[in-house]
Amino acid sequence: MSSIIKSSTKIFSEVPISLGERSYRILIGANLLADGGVWEGVPESHHAVIVSNSTVAPLYSDVLRNAISSRYAQVHEVRLPDGEEFKNWQTLQTIFDVLLQKGCDRKTILYALGGGVVGDMTGFAAACYMRGIPFVQVPTTLLSQVDSSVGGKTGINHPLGKNMVGAFYQPQRVVCDLSVLTTLPQREFSAGLAEVIKYGPIADMQFFTWLEDKIEAVMAQHPEALAHAVCRSCEIKAEVVGLDERESGLRAILNFGHTFGHAIEAGLGYGIWLHGEGVGAGMVMAAELSCRLGLVDEIFVKRLMSIIDRAGLSVKGPILDSKDNAGRYLQLMRGDKKSEAGEIRFVLIESPGKAVVRSAPDRLVREVIDACCS
Amino acid sequence: MSSIIKSSTKIFSEVPISLGERSYRILIGANLLADGGVWEGVPESHHAVIVSNSTVAPLYSDVLRNAISSRYAQVHEVRLPDGEEFKNWQTLQTIFDVLLQKGCDRKTILYALGGGVVGDMTGFAAACYMRGIPFVQVPTTLLSQVDSSVGGKTGINHPLGKNMVGAFYQPQRVVCDLSVLTTLPQREFSAGLAEVIKYGPIADMQFFTWLEDKIEAVMAQHPEALAHAVCRSCEIKAEVVGLDERESGLRAILNFGHTFGHAIEAGLGYGIWLHGEGVGAGMVMAAELSCRLGLVDEIFVKRLMSIIDRAGLSVKGPILDSKDNAGRYLQLMRGDKKSEAGEIRFVLIESPGKAVVRSAPDRLVREVIDACCS
Repeated sequence: MSSIIKSSTKIFSEVPISLGERSYRILIGANLLADGGVWEGVPESHHAVIVSNSTVAPLYSDVLRNAISSRYAQVHEVRLPDGEEFKNWQTLQTIFDVLLQKGCDRKTILYALGGGVVGDMTGFAAACYMRGIPFVQVPTTLLSQVDSSVGGKTGINHPLGKNMVGAFYQPQRVVCDLSVLTTLPQREFSAGLAEVIKYGPIADMQFFTWLEDKIEAVMAQHPEALAHAVCRSCEIKAEVVGLDERESGLRAILNFGHTFGHAIEAGLGYGIWLHGEGVGAGMVMAAELSCRLGLVDEIFVKRLMSIIDRAGLSVKGPILDSKDNAGRYLQLMRGDKKSEAGEIRFVLIESPGKAVVRSAPDRLVREVIDACCS
Repeated sequence: MSSIIKSSTKIFSEVPISLGERSYRILIGANLLADGGVWEGVPESHHAVIVSNSTVAPLYSDVLRNAISSRYAQVHEVRLPDGEEFKNWQTLQTIFDVLLQKGCDRKTILYALGGGVVGDMTGFAAACYMRGIPFVQVPTTLLSQVDSSVGGKTGINHPLGKNMVGAFYQPQRVVCDLSVLTTLPQREFSAGLAEVIKYGPIADMQFFTWLEDKIEAVMAQHPEALAHAVCRSCEIKAEVVGLDERESGLRAILNFGHTFGHAIEAGLGYGIWLHGEGVGAGMVMAAELSCRLGLVDEIFVKRLMSIIDRAGLSVKGPILDSKDNAGRYLQLMRGDKKSEAGEIRFVLIESPGKAVVRSAPDRLVREVIDACCS
């Protein structure tokens, strides 16, 4: 459960992540970036490196640098190109290049200032550099605040698949400054909402109902509504991750909508649809599949479609192949890393608020894809 | 402590590595590769991949394939180019390429069949592929049998430094077949002996004395002497690793001779001197530095030089810079990943059989380098 904390200057919520010696805290609130209080307890060292991208760095890297500069003799900076298409080894290598050129040692700490791509790559760089150095997540997109910065998944894409190379590696801290979301493009904000919406059907229908009531307030970034949406999302994710750090079972439920969503991203080419946009349409397909398997009723599917639509997201998936669209989806999903020996493992809704991981007959999956794409 | 085990066909020694849920066993003996018994308990799966190199694969990959083929529906193979200069991202990428092209899932198991380079890269590939899949070490060099295949260090080199990118990742099992060492070039066998010799000064002078007595028998690969040398080396390493899996302190003593040795390897360009050759000359420098700091006497340094010489290794380091050789060594050592904020941490011998990690005055280090290079 989260608690409300008051530092020297700010009020923020704290969500603890319990992973034994790898435990850490998520701090959530407005105007946190510039607040010295939220950085207390993060390791001090000789070197710190802010890893950001060409979009976020001009807006926020000086603010972060000023807030942490008293803790390090040297604060270096790496600016990555912005975009999922740069989430690859070549870009990762530029982080290692700077770390080595600056003489960064094993106690150097990395600050990931950006969205999911920056967080995933910085976390993976931290996991691998000298076999592991500490890092801090400073997510600047809604998607990364409610999902990718929590739980320790890091990695890069391979030409043959998304996130195929990576590590489970936990940050020292996650600082979610809600104020930075004001500069986030609306399309990306909507994509982030897909992951917020996700938590209801898999774990908490009370939160889903709250969101049905407040979705417009959240989209308008009303402070209280936004804080609750982010906080509750992090809490649910924290709970699931705490029970299954390395995704051996339960954690897979967080991938509701992702099996179809990854196929959309891979099939169109990464970056055409945003991750959250794929997840949005993917959740509709997964819900529809759950419905056709007799797990949930049509009313539930309609409620889910309605809130996805109100969040500014497409409820329909794209056509990936005009000749055999369902076949192409199936082919892509079989290559997903959650597949086992070619069998696709779907995250389905067993009953609203409860997810289940299981396979489904190809025939049924084809019907769902045909019904849910246009 | 090791124990003697008899499987259906073979007698071998077993050294347990105690790392909680990451515990595993090292099996040591003659003609183990072809013996089904030593593979019992290793995870079965749909896919297995033998990762080897262009030198070792033609000799032993069919033997290994036959021994494990009943455990997997498909056994694939990746042949890497042979040599330290290929221990880089490009080569690692070829492993990921095959894994993805063959549709290898999260339960796929990798077999590292080769020396330290193959083991380090295969282990790192296993650590990163889909954020972690199981792997087995089948070391085919003396160096990798007594050192690199034990302890979970994996990784690749970066143009600016050796092993700069990697992970701590434990194998499911290590199988040391002593018979494969008959095809190992003498130069590489000698290089491996450097790591065997190392264990005496840092942990067990009784073993050192035994080795002084038996070094010729070990070099001639007399079965009993060789088995004891490998077994005792693995035991000592296992003990140290068990106490400090992630090299936060104690484990650093295993790097006796390595700080100077890495400078030699990096300064000449990787592959000119073998790793063990650098460690051999490096141990002499570290012992000489220990002596000049008043920790050990000259007799100890002479004993160490004598056995290194008898093992067929150079006791002198190379000249890396004709104008300022000591300066070049110091520069390279300051860039080593064991350095902290530019301070070089040397593994020294506090008293024979006991190592200590500490810094030393530059002036003294320069004197040692001047005395120990030619």
